[in-house]
Amino acid sequence: MALAGTTDKSVTVSIDTTTGVMADHPALERNLSGLDGLFQDTNARTALLAGGDVIVYEVYTLDRPETSGELATGTSIVYPGKVGNEYFMTKGHFHTVLDTAETYLCLSGHGYMLMESPEGEWELAEFLPGRAVYVPGRYAHRSINISPDQPLVTYFSFRADAGHDYATIETKGFRKLVVEKDGKPEVVDNPRWNA
Amino acid sequence: MALAGTTDKSVTVSIDTTTGVMADHPALERNLSGLDGLFQDTNARTALLAGGDVIVYEVYTLDRPETSGELATGTSIVYPGKVGNEYFMTKGHFHTVLDTAETYLCLSGHGYMLMESPEGEWELAEFLPGRAVYVPGRYAHRSINISPDQPLVTYFSFRADAGHDYATIETKGFRKLVVEKDGKPEVVDNPRWNA
Repeated sequence: MALAGTTDKSVTVSIDTTTGVMADHPALERNLSGLDGLFQDTNARTALLAGGDVIVYEVYTLDRPETSGELATGTSIVYPGKVGNEYFMTKGHFHTVLDTAETYLCLSGHGYMLMESPEGEWELAEFLPGRAVYVPGRYAHRSINISPDQPLVTYFSFRADAGHDYATIETKGFRKLVVEKDGKPEVVDNPRWNA
Repeated sequence: MALAGTTDKSVTVSIDTTTGVMADHPALERNLSGLDGLFQDTNARTALLAGGDVIVYEVYTLDRPETSGELATGTSIVYPGKVGNEYFMTKGHFHTVLDTAETYLCLSGHGYMLMESPEGEWELAEFLPGRAVYVPGRYAHRSINISPDQPLVTYFSFRADAGHDYATIETKGFRKLVVEKDGKPEVVDNPRWNA
C-alpha cells in the first residue's frame, strides 16, 4: 500500500476448496503409522501399512497466539480410505476449555461429524459441500470421510485458547463408531469403549 | 437416529455458496433507505432510491446464545452496486469486546475487507473465492463488493459475546474509503472523517 498508516496484523490466505490446501502454510500430517489404537481392526491396519504409510488426514492452521481474543482457524482434510470396516477419520478431541464451540464448513467431499459429550450424549451431522456444522461446547468431535474417492475438506474456527484434549479420546475412545456395512455407513456401539 | 442417547445441540445448516443463502434461516436485510449517512454522495443515493429501495447487503446468523463459549457464525452477502463512486458495502463495526478477532472465508464474488484500528492504523485485504481473511482484534471491519454483477459472499465466525459497536463508525466513519476511479478501486482519505 502506498498510503501511510497501513499495518499487517490481518492475515489473508488462499484455500484450495477442492483439496483443502492452504497456500504457503505447513500441514500437520497424520500418517497411519502414527495412529496406533485409532482403528479397531489391527490386522487390516498392518496389511495397509505393508503397502505404504498413507496419510489419513492433514490439518492446516493459521499461526495465531493461543489467547481468548484470537481464533484458531484452518482446514481439515480427511483422505478417502478404510481400515477394515472403519472409514478414515480424525482422532477426535475435546477442547481443554470444555465449554467452547467450534464451527465447521464443508468445502468438498462427503462425511460425518461425530460428537459426544462426557456424559455419553452423542450426535451425528452429515457433511456435504456448503454444509455448516456447529459443534456445541462440551462435545468431543471427529470428522469421518465416507466417500470412496474424494477427500473430506472442512474449514474450521474456534477460540484459540480452547486447546485440544486428545488424551481422553485416546484412552476411552468414542462410545459410538461409524462403520461401513453392506456398502453404507452405520452407527454402532464401540465394543472397545473404555469407561 | 434410532440409537439411544442422541441429542440435538449441534446445528447443521446448508449454505448456498453462490448466493450465501442459509436455508431455513431469516436474513437481516440492510436496504439503501436505512443506510443514511453511509455513502458520501447523497444526490446519487436519492436518485438510486427513486428507482426502488434496493437491498445493499444481508446477513444470516445462526441463533446462538451470546456467551463467551459460543460462536456467532453465518454469511454476509453484499450485493453489486454503487452509490456515486462508492461501492456497495457494509456499515462496518468494531466489536464491543474490542480485542476479539473474526474469521472470514470468501465463498464467491470479488471485493475487499477494509480494517481500521481506533488509533487509525488500517489494512485492506482482497476477497476472492477461497480466500480467508483473519481480522485481528481491535480492528473495525467493513466488506466492500467491487464486482459489477456478482454478490460478495463471505462466511464468518467470531466469539458470540464479542458484540457489535456500530455507533463509533456511524459517528466517525472510517478514515479510508474505497472508491472507483477510472474503473478501478482506489483507497482515498475520507473527506468527512470525524475525529
